[in-house]
Amino acid sequence: MGIMQILHMNKGEGESSYAKNSTVQKQIITVASSILEKSVLDSVHKTHPKSMGIADLGCSSGPNTLTVISKIINTIYAASYQMPELRISLNDLPENDFNSVFISLPDFYSNLKKEKGIGVDECFIFGVAGSFYGRLFPKNSLHFVHSSSSLHWLSQVPPALDKNSGKHLNKGKIYISKTSPDCVLKAYLYQFQKDFFDFMRSRADEMVAGGGMLLSFMGRSSSDASAEVGCHQWELLAQALMSMVPEGLVQEEEIDSLNAPYYAPSPEEVRNIIQEEGSFLINHLEAFEISWEGGNACDKHDYDDLEKLSRGQQVAKTIRAVVEPMLVSHFGREIMDELFTRFGNLVDVYFSNTKAKHINLVISVTRKD
Amino acid sequence: MGIMQILHMNKGEGESSYAKNSTVQKQIITVASSILEKSVLDSVHKTHPKSMGIADLGCSSGPNTLTVISKIINTIYAASYQMPELRISLNDLPENDFNSVFISLPDFYSNLKKEKGIGVDECFIFGVAGSFYGRLFPKNSLHFVHSSSSLHWLSQVPPALDKNSGKHLNKGKIYISKTSPDCVLKAYLYQFQKDFFDFMRSRADEMVAGGGMLLSFMGRSSSDASAEVGCHQWELLAQALMSMVPEGLVQEEEIDSLNAPYYAPSPEEVRNIIQEEGSFLINHLEAFEISWEGGNACDKHDYDDLEKLSRGQQVAKTIRAVVEPMLVSHFGREIMDELFTRFGNLVDVYFSNTKAKHINLVISVTRKD
Repeated sequence: MGIMQILHMNKGEGESSYAKNSTVQKQIITVASSILEKSVLDSVHKTHPKSMGIADLGCSSGPNTLTVISKIINTIYAASYQMPELRISLNDLPENDFNSVFISLPDFYSNLKKEKGIGVDECFIFGVAGSFYGRLFPKNSLHFVHSSSSLHWLSQVPPALDKNSGKHLNKGKIYISKTSPDCVLKAYLYQFQKDFFDFMRSRADEMVAGGGMLLSFMGRSSSDASAEVGCHQWELLAQALMSMVPEGLVQEEEIDSLNAPYYAPSPEEVRNIIQEEGSFLINHLEAFEISWEGGNACDKHDYDDLEKLSRGQQVAKTIRAVVEPMLVSHFGREIMDELFTRFGNLVDVYFSNTKAKHINLVISVTRKD
Repeated sequence: MGIMQILHMNKGEGESSYAKNSTVQKQIITVASSILEKSVLDSVHKTHPKSMGIADLGCSSGPNTLTVISKIINTIYAASYQMPELRISLNDLPENDFNSVFISLPDFYSNLKKEKGIGVDECFIFGVAGSFYGRLFPKNSLHFVHSSSSLHWLSQVPPALDKNSGKHLNKGKIYISKTSPDCVLKAYLYQFQKDFFDFMRSRADEMVAGGGMLLSFMGRSSSDASAEVGCHQWELLAQALMSMVPEGLVQEEEIDSLNAPYYAPSPEEVRNIIQEEGSFLINHLEAFEISWEGGNACDKHDYDDLEKLSRGQQVAKTIRAVVEPMLVSHFGREIMDELFTRFGNLVDVYFSNTKAKHINLVISVTRKD
């Protein structure tokens, strides 16, 4: 199976679903909120669109999907004497649960009318299925682009590290680790450079001059790609998998042959590629810390449930919602409960020694003339 | 539940799914094929688009969804020295199974590249969830619109006949019947007139001058709305339901309170509304006959399975795929197998007396300047 088939969040509304376990991603959206607002306003002022093309790339499904769109609309609404016509595209890979996004649209439209008087003849929402590492939209059709918690996913496992490459260069690990040989770091960096360049080039074609883009995704603050802060969750997941080998629950060779299609770049690596591609001006580039548990859950009911879990188990639920489809396609569904219990326990131990944080990068750019 | 929640085809790929039981709709597409081709070419010649907006309204999911789009692309490709950029929108109600449509897109794009050299930077496919009785697209954004086997579905049950109206004006029937009082015919006609007018007015806003639209949906040839040919399948379905009353499987009151949100108009009724709305020129308006079984199934395997069924049971499968969600929301899931077995038997009896045909209307129009 290609990356298109395995790289999607857990579907539906169940206990392990992304919809119920996306508070970290929500926290990231909240932290980036003021930069988002500034970036949207800047785009409106620079492009003065009568009809404004807006895209959210890697929209996923669940409560966050329409939250971002609401924030963008609110910002335009508050700043506009005359609202432009809004053409809003929600993008993700074809395996994303678009059905659940679409089912929530009638309520979204009716609230928009009730709260702001924006009618169905003024705001049009489209679903777009495909990889954002290629073209998704017509030329010069977008005025503002947003992408949150998505660009750390690569278009593919670096070919040298793919399970079909016949070599196991990263034994006992599933991402860059302190013990990874240099060729593993290089293979990951090369894939990220290629993917992120393709992303920027595709958006350059699609965006009008003066249009703005806000990107936010996992990164690291250290220049060293094997520094713990960029890869600790993968390190602990590999440890949990390795602990299952002696009991015969997992074959060691299965772990050796798996590498995550993920990369947490440094701010410098991101800056270099944007400058190399050349179509965008960087307004803002910042790395900030996010807690592993994603802060409080959305409502009291969820919070009560979460309080019964250890911090490690809370983290395990959040990460499970995102990586489970990928792991199921490699190891099968049977070991998932056991794997994430062990992973949660390891996270608890880790927490007792470290103040564990993710690093999130936020980048705001403008399309040059 | 509103019409949005119940009016969708049976999802997925199972035995009763629309994807496996849409050969009648396929036959309709085939019959309308040459008119479609002419209408597409006419739009291209009249509008000379650099970027061409195309919409399929009521696209559903299953093999027919992308067949129509392929036909449209093939026609443009064969006629164009320089292919326009294609912006293709697939629309249906929010409950439609868009996920299965999106999952088939990567193969579709890759065939387009292989067979015609049309790349992902030349053809963009969007999903649009919402009712086509209101606005769905930005102003002046469409050059060609297609809708097949959808416009016979009303936006709602005529209010006077709704189960919440407190009155049962159409006892023992679920659509217009020979025994229906005149007020039932009037309520249905009024709802169709309102809906079809709203449809034409919305498209008038969305389409550029010279743009073409091809519509194809169930109708009747007689001017009398209670003439058998426009309503025989509903008549037999009501008979099947009524046959279950004595055994206590269905309450008679449940049948009395159900009326299908469906209308099969005459060519004259359609012509009148198009002329009243006033934005479109009629190029072609034709009523033609379609067999109830939808001709042969697509491939040998399906055909073998179908041959084991009586003609009545084949018809029952086709109709079940379309109306089951609506009936389940009213009667519950439990009686469905029994209901469609009885319905199939009634169709077999009907076939022994009558050469049963559907009437399908095909209308080709051009947006005036």
